[in-house]
Amino acid sequence: MVKIADVAREANVSVATVSRVLNKKGSVRPETCERVYKAIEKLSFEPNMSARNLRRNETRVILIVAPNITNPYYAHILAGIGDEARKSGYSALIYNTGGDEEREKNGMDMLKKRRADGAILLASNIDSMWVKEYADKYPIVHCSEYVKGLDIPRVSIDNYKATLEVMEYIISLGHKKIATISSSNSYISTLLRLKGYKDTLERHGIEVRKDYIALAGAEYSFKSGKAAAFKLLQQKDRPTAIFCISDTIALGAITAAKEMGLRVPEDLTVTGFDDVDYTTMFHPYITTVAQPCYDLGRKSFKILHACMNKTNDIEKKVVLPHKFIIRESSAPISTCD
Amino acid sequence: MVKIADVAREANVSVATVSRVLNKKGSVRPETCERVYKAIEKLSFEPNMSARNLRRNETRVILIVAPNITNPYYAHILAGIGDEARKSGYSALIYNTGGDEEREKNGMDMLKKRRADGAILLASNIDSMWVKEYADKYPIVHCSEYVKGLDIPRVSIDNYKATLEVMEYIISLGHKKIATISSSNSYISTLLRLKGYKDTLERHGIEVRKDYIALAGAEYSFKSGKAAAFKLLQQKDRPTAIFCISDTIALGAITAAKEMGLRVPEDLTVTGFDDVDYTTMFHPYITTVAQPCYDLGRKSFKILHACMNKTNDIEKKVVLPHKFIIRESSAPISTCD
Repeated sequence: MVKIADVAREANVSVATVSRVLNKKGSVRPETCERVYKAIEKLSFEPNMSARNLRRNETRVILIVAPNITNPYYAHILAGIGDEARKSGYSALIYNTGGDEEREKNGMDMLKKRRADGAILLASNIDSMWVKEYADKYPIVHCSEYVKGLDIPRVSIDNYKATLEVMEYIISLGHKKIATISSSNSYISTLLRLKGYKDTLERHGIEVRKDYIALAGAEYSFKSGKAAAFKLLQQKDRPTAIFCISDTIALGAITAAKEMGLRVPEDLTVTGFDDVDYTTMFHPYITTVAQPCYDLGRKSFKILHACMNKTNDIEKKVVLPHKFIIRESSAPISTCD
Repeated sequence: MVKIADVAREANVSVATVSRVLNKKGSVRPETCERVYKAIEKLSFEPNMSARNLRRNETRVILIVAPNITNPYYAHILAGIGDEARKSGYSALIYNTGGDEEREKNGMDMLKKRRADGAILLASNIDSMWVKEYADKYPIVHCSEYVKGLDIPRVSIDNYKATLEVMEYIISLGHKKIATISSSNSYISTLLRLKGYKDTLERHGIEVRKDYIALAGAEYSFKSGKAAAFKLLQQKDRPTAIFCISDTIALGAITAAKEMGLRVPEDLTVTGFDDVDYTTMFHPYITTVAQPCYDLGRKSFKILHACMNKTNDIEKKVVLPHKFIIRESSAPISTCD
């Protein structure tokens, strides 16, 4: 195996100089630097990264802790993080928790074991106070969701404001019987969207009805969205509009409506959230809130990078703009009946 | 920071004994072992894994190199690998290449840098001979796809045989104008499915027509499947059946047919491949080949584990059973016209 001493001999410099070049620290004359690189190439020298990074105490790896990576919502976030990490010479590795909090902790233990320099958490529960233990010691950034009350940098959209926009729009269409399909998870986005739903109704003097609030599964599955919609629509006094907190749920609701012989949007308005790819794969195209997923990912890495470099003035609460998009799944109440 | 010497002092044993306990090597009396564990707990000692594993030369991390992790086909494979890895005390980290071969190499360099003990490759091109360089030095297993001619363990279904089944079925329905939507990628599965398509037609004396072979994108996107179907169906002498090499492509083909006013399956038979979740999300439910994805993942890890442990008699070519499932998107030719 080629050693650093062999490279030094070949380049006719000291071991310390090779080390300075490898670690990009201290000053080395450009021509010396070039000589070292040539020697490295000639001898096919591969620095033992594990030994080297142990010394430097960094891995150049960041961890993305994700609950369910095949959820299409994460596609562009993961791409944004990955692209930005690569630009800075980092590899982004994904740890799939399947939504299990124990596995989330196991993933975070990678930081303790020095397998990664920092982590981006994609879906912490609002009350996961245990995250603090890690955040006190390691660079961590929350993306999309976050633990309430912890001083951890976070990047997200304004879920509450976005919900108000959707709800005001539905009400402006003349709907009064407006249901929501929320989720059984404990994400901050879920809470804020439910709060936005209730607050808008109250502001307009519309009663918040328990039988108009249904829950889909924690993972926003199509099946659970469909089941929740059936429950809402089988009621005698059925809603004329459903505000769904994810596009998959909305797709489930539209399918349920169709199977019951209801037309969307003529008989039922359905709105989604996130704007994943398939909102425009089937008619009716879904009215939804577009999240800037790629930018959420990029920004999360940028902040994590700043944390890892111990930069001052880390941005703590970054809110990126969303976009409400009206498509085919919503229509004025007048077209009903 | 608590050191191993502090633990030794607290437990009243030698450093070597603590080390034996930590590394589970050599013999230590149970009561001594317990004393060491108590000392570790009392002092909140955290072994420096990076230093420790450097010595032991293992990371207990395996790498999953994936082209596009949000492709629903990978969901259950990733779950299978992850579950099996956890059972053996390994963490499975995912490296997303976006289908880019350079990034695939960067991912594999993690092995060189000792960031992982082995890798499972989910989508190598058939001619990626560069994989050999890594396979000669590190434990590697191919899952689903593989490089032809390399002696690397692999787990997959029999893509050729599965295709023959689908094609024989379509022909048995009376179809003669049978098209295929293949892909522009270089996966072994793509090649074998195309070969199976052509061979079955030839065996039945049906001409293989160039204008009945269309290509979707390398990543099997819905959009590219839809575009390929439009191309096939806009021909004057249009096909009455399309054999699609993925469910997403089949979904695109069904959508294209609908937009052109064709009914599936009355006017057009469409079959898919893989049996991802949404084959039964919309009507018509898709006739397809189910892959045992979860088991493909589990088996891949098991073989990788054997490789990492340098077990003899490693299984080199594992073929798991597929299942052809007839649903609503296919029908006899007689119902056409």
